[in-house]
Amino acid sequence: MSPPADGAPAAFSPTDRSQVRRRPQRAHYDEATVYGVLDAGVMAHVGYVIDGQPYVTPTAYWREDRRLYWHGAAASRMLATVAEGAPVCVTVSFLDGFLVGRSGITHSLNYRSVMAFGRARLMTDLGEVRAAMDAFIDRLYAGRPLKLRPTTDDELRRIALVEMEIEDASAKVKDTGVTDLPADDGWAAWCGVVPVETRIGAPLPQPGMGSGGPPTPDLAPYREGARLDDALALAKAYGLPISM
Amino acid sequence: MSPPADGAPAAFSPTDRSQVRRRPQRAHYDEATVYGVLDAGVMAHVGYVIDGQPYVTPTAYWREDRRLYWHGAAASRMLATVAEGAPVCVTVSFLDGFLVGRSGITHSLNYRSVMAFGRARLMTDLGEVRAAMDAFIDRLYAGRPLKLRPTTDDELRRIALVEMEIEDASAKVKDTGVTDLPADDGWAAWCGVVPVETRIGAPLPQPGMGSGGPPTPDLAPYREGARLDDALALAKAYGLPISM
Repeated sequence: MSPPADGAPAAFSPTDRSQVRRRPQRAHYDEATVYGVLDAGVMAHVGYVIDGQPYVTPTAYWREDRRLYWHGAAASRMLATVAEGAPVCVTVSFLDGFLVGRSGITHSLNYRSVMAFGRARLMTDLGEVRAAMDAFIDRLYAGRPLKLRPTTDDELRRIALVEMEIEDASAKVKDTGVTDLPADDGWAAWCGVVPVETRIGAPLPQPGMGSGGPPTPDLAPYREGARLDDALALAKAYGLPISM
Repeated sequence: MSPPADGAPAAFSPTDRSQVRRRPQRAHYDEATVYGVLDAGVMAHVGYVIDGQPYVTPTAYWREDRRLYWHGAAASRMLATVAEGAPVCVTVSFLDGFLVGRSGITHSLNYRSVMAFGRARLMTDLGEVRAAMDAFIDRLYAGRPLKLRPTTDDELRRIALVEMEIEDASAKVKDTGVTDLPADDGWAAWCGVVPVETRIGAPLPQPGMGSGGPPTPDLAPYREGARLDDALALAKAYGLPISM
């Protein structure tokens, strides 16, 4: 990547695979938009190919700068494939609402999504794996790694953790009202937006284990009723001083 | 698929590509579980391959019996590829909660997911496309197709709609508390589950368009605060008499 021109925001260069063909007006390649979508989620869909067959595996992930991280059991098919450096597409998406129109063709969805392309590498150094796992927990629950029973080397060996430098990426965002058509004039069907929101529920302490009672400050962003994306943004901001 | 043996629930046969290798105790192949996950969502992640490169495109979808449907613009790369009968993996997943443990390795997520494999075919008959689009709207908003301005043939020609018979599929569900380890005994960190819930927000009528005011009965399942999966289940039950 070349640095951005003076005054231009840092951006991914659209490539043949990342360029959005349909509705290019909804496409974004700047880091702020791409990272905004990537940082709003916890589950990504990792696409990979084995013998010509596509697989899409949902998995927990996180982002640091231009790198995505995810992990799984050392024995997983997905990890075995992507760790070999096969091409990967990591997609993160959110449903934000139903657009309810007055004709069939104007029904739609509001959404945010990112497709990120690259090749992953397996992290094999135990110290590196330990630091990355701490960074993941710290990214979600700022300061929490310091309170936990330390992970043993044997435990770390059972985790396969991969790092993917994002080579190219695009975001696609639709956040509009219904695109009513002239032909819909006069039709009386209800027309508007039904929002969809992902929120935190009431935390449930595990009976007889740990501190009990209300969640500790590392869990403060996850208060009941908070939007998940707001909670994750807050957690990331809290975690900055001690992140990887 | 052969019919189930007497008394056995209808199920997908695990195949080499659909068999869950990791945590097989979380795997399900019965139709009830697979359909339960598929019917709880609106956005699927469609995986396909072009020249060895995997792509994962988020898209709106619905299910009828063992068939999945999704659509897009006739010009889209995803539709052009999958409509040729290339192998496809359609994955639907939901994040249901954070498992917050007392050691790094016991942190996890609760989730539901389905991976469904098959090959899609493009629906080319305009009457068939019209019926399917009505079925999609009716599946989400029971009775609504009868209230809408009829879709024109020109509008239908701009939609590419595909049907995929599910050849094999697996569901994976984790809905537990934290798997605390003996080594975690005595550590005082907060331990428990932070649920994540996707819910309907306050409907926003489009100013000056359509009936205005509160949503009509076809939108009744989408009341503010309802869980999205409950709303979709209710909408599907309402729609049964007139579905495709």
